[in-house]
Amino acid sequence: MDKTELTIPGFKASAVAAGIKKGKALDLAMIVSDQDTTAAAVFTTNKVKAAPVILSMEHIRDSRVGAVIVNSGNANACTGKEGMDKARLTAELVAKELGIAPEEVIVASTGVIGATLDMDLFKKAIPDLAKGLAPDGIQSAARAIMTTDSFPKISRFEGEAGGKTYQILGIAKGAGMIMPDMATMLCFIVSDIRIEASELQRALLSATETSFNRITVDGDTSTNDMVLVMANGMAGNDGLDADDREGFLRGLKRVMTELATMIVRDGEGATKVVYVTVKGAASGADALIAARTIADSSLVKTAFYGQDPNWGRIMAALGRSDIFMKEEEVTIWIDDVRIVENGLGLGADPEERAAEQMKNKEFTLTVDLRQGDHEDRITTCDLTHEYVSINADYRT
Amino acid sequence: MDKTELTIPGFKASAVAAGIKKGKALDLAMIVSDQDTTAAAVFTTNKVKAAPVILSMEHIRDSRVGAVIVNSGNANACTGKEGMDKARLTAELVAKELGIAPEEVIVASTGVIGATLDMDLFKKAIPDLAKGLAPDGIQSAARAIMTTDSFPKISRFEGEAGGKTYQILGIAKGAGMIMPDMATMLCFIVSDIRIEASELQRALLSATETSFNRITVDGDTSTNDMVLVMANGMAGNDGLDADDREGFLRGLKRVMTELATMIVRDGEGATKVVYVTVKGAASGADALIAARTIADSSLVKTAFYGQDPNWGRIMAALGRSDIFMKEEEVTIWIDDVRIVENGLGLGADPEERAAEQMKNKEFTLTVDLRQGDHEDRITTCDLTHEYVSINADYRT
Repeated sequence: MDKTELTIPGFKASAVAAGIKKGKALDLAMIVSDQDTTAAAVFTTNKVKAAPVILSMEHIRDSRVGAVIVNSGNANACTGKEGMDKARLTAELVAKELGIAPEEVIVASTGVIGATLDMDLFKKAIPDLAKGLAPDGIQSAARAIMTTDSFPKISRFEGEAGGKTYQILGIAKGAGMIMPDMATMLCFIVSDIRIEASELQRALLSATETSFNRITVDGDTSTNDMVLVMANGMAGNDGLDADDREGFLRGLKRVMTELATMIVRDGEGATKVVYVTVKGAASGADALIAARTIADSSLVKTAFYGQDPNWGRIMAALGRSDIFMKEEEVTIWIDDVRIVENGLGLGADPEERAAEQMKNKEFTLTVDLRQGDHEDRITTCDLTHEYVSINADYRT
Repeated sequence: MDKTELTIPGFKASAVAAGIKKGKALDLAMIVSDQDTTAAAVFTTNKVKAAPVILSMEHIRDSRVGAVIVNSGNANACTGKEGMDKARLTAELVAKELGIAPEEVIVASTGVIGATLDMDLFKKAIPDLAKGLAPDGIQSAARAIMTTDSFPKISRFEGEAGGKTYQILGIAKGAGMIMPDMATMLCFIVSDIRIEASELQRALLSATETSFNRITVDGDTSTNDMVLVMANGMAGNDGLDADDREGFLRGLKRVMTELATMIVRDGEGATKVVYVTVKGAASGADALIAARTIADSSLVKTAFYGQDPNWGRIMAALGRSDIFMKEEEVTIWIDDVRIVENGLGLGADPEERAAEQMKNKEFTLTVDLRQGDHEDRITTCDLTHEYVSINADYRT
């Protein structure tokens, strides 16, 4: 993307290396709106919520956000009262620096759980962050929120509402502890569209359901997940009609789905992205459960890594997923190669062609249950030696 | 164990290399009773059940088993009508050779799913198996049922009922596709105790619940799992009184728990066995769900491998497990080293001592939720590079 495309009127961002991470990597980012905004957010469903999540759930209540501060390298989770005090102090420091109310500041953290934040680093860095704010700062911000991510994740959409052009620009981080269950990473989205807070929240929930709630890396749900979207109305549109609303929702879904897919592509140690579709299910729930069970199976994911169309493991995953199914009615494809029909393998020839497809960096796995007309999809990755290396040594 | 200890009056066993596996490994085993038996069995809960499972569920109905035939190297699962015909033919071949009814034969298979059995190999090998039957053949049988197992699994118990000494002798196979959900591998147990079929079935269900349903390797449930127990009454006891029944149940539990623990110890690529205990839960279900969620988390299991007391991942697993909990009341120990109290880490010193304990081949992880007095335990293993290697290349 051209750097000039990564700006939205009224929003500025910046990032610094505050010393929270080891080395000199960017680890603290700020996104600021100089206009009034409407904002909406979804947060982790984990009962163990990090201090910044608890604080931000409080601060989002009036739907106005003036600034977001995000650190990587330390999750400020499982840190008790001290952690809450520090999250609160972070919001106060930012508010004071920017001349806004602390309640207008969203605080987010990602990194190691259970470690104590060094507030001196924040005190020193926040004035530098404020000084560095720039319309095109979002790119550095996308870098600063990375932990085990191997690349920054940015997505952009341009739409029209009431004859006015608007943009949606999103950044995200996430590579592990990714499981489809309401906002499974950090994601910050800004737009210059004019939209009411309740509409924005509805659109966000809907887009979350089809994007971040349809990916999986390792079946774990983080304590720190958050998706925040802010809109400042600078596009100048007068509210939204039904078409505009639909267009905005489509744009938001596209940005969030792109970011979600980037997260799977960057899944810890992943070498392949696999789109698992289950169709012909008796109900929507069955389609989703079946797709998730396949997409989360360690045995299926290692077979992806081994480029082995080991459909027996897919049948075994379906069989334990507690859905309505008949073994003898199942059909399975890798891309367009049918390897199972009526529950039976079709032999070495299609399996060899399927194995060939599985050498690609992305492929689809489609299961037809022939029990009804419901369908759902989960995007997943393979389980590799590198995943084990990354997670065995994460804190050392 | 002394070889002479591995015999039970009235039971004989044998094993041959029939050529079902590549190479010359033992791959076909038979266990035969020359006395009338009572028998009980539990089978996989997977909806996709292998042909031998379906057949054996039929054959066990009258609780009489004369012979068991087990092959490794081919699961005869997802093989449709042809697979059922072949399982049935296997029972007939064995029955004819031994002069018993086909309905008295239990058939079990383990290995690759979706591959076709070569019945010529069975026709050729079954007479050899019958010729080779010997009182101490159980040891070779334990070898013949192995797939990715690295060692044969045998356990023995000696008890007394009504003044008579009896034995329980069990063998098992299993290293992957192991998930706590009703009989998750192959296990064959013989005893010379006299016991009624209904009592035997009750004891088996109870012992399964505390043994095989309390282990996990990778969260996958196989299509072929089966636990069979046969008793022939040769010990000469006259039925069982309450104490005898309890003693037998204790013995059965011990044998099955030993075998289950061996399966985890032999978990694919595993380097460590970890006993995960959750106590202080508000209900038995909460204790079990919490223990399972921790024991199945890829992130927790890679941290075990890395010998890292990364308790943040344990807290995150608890938080997503949907149990009744308060973060600020959780205490966590590795062996007897407390690393978390009131939801907060206790710092580098205990963590270093915990990391030291985690270098051992076996250790315990204990979580106290302080919400009630329920407790449960799951035995698990670490997730290693070797697990990925084994399962990426299984069929090649």
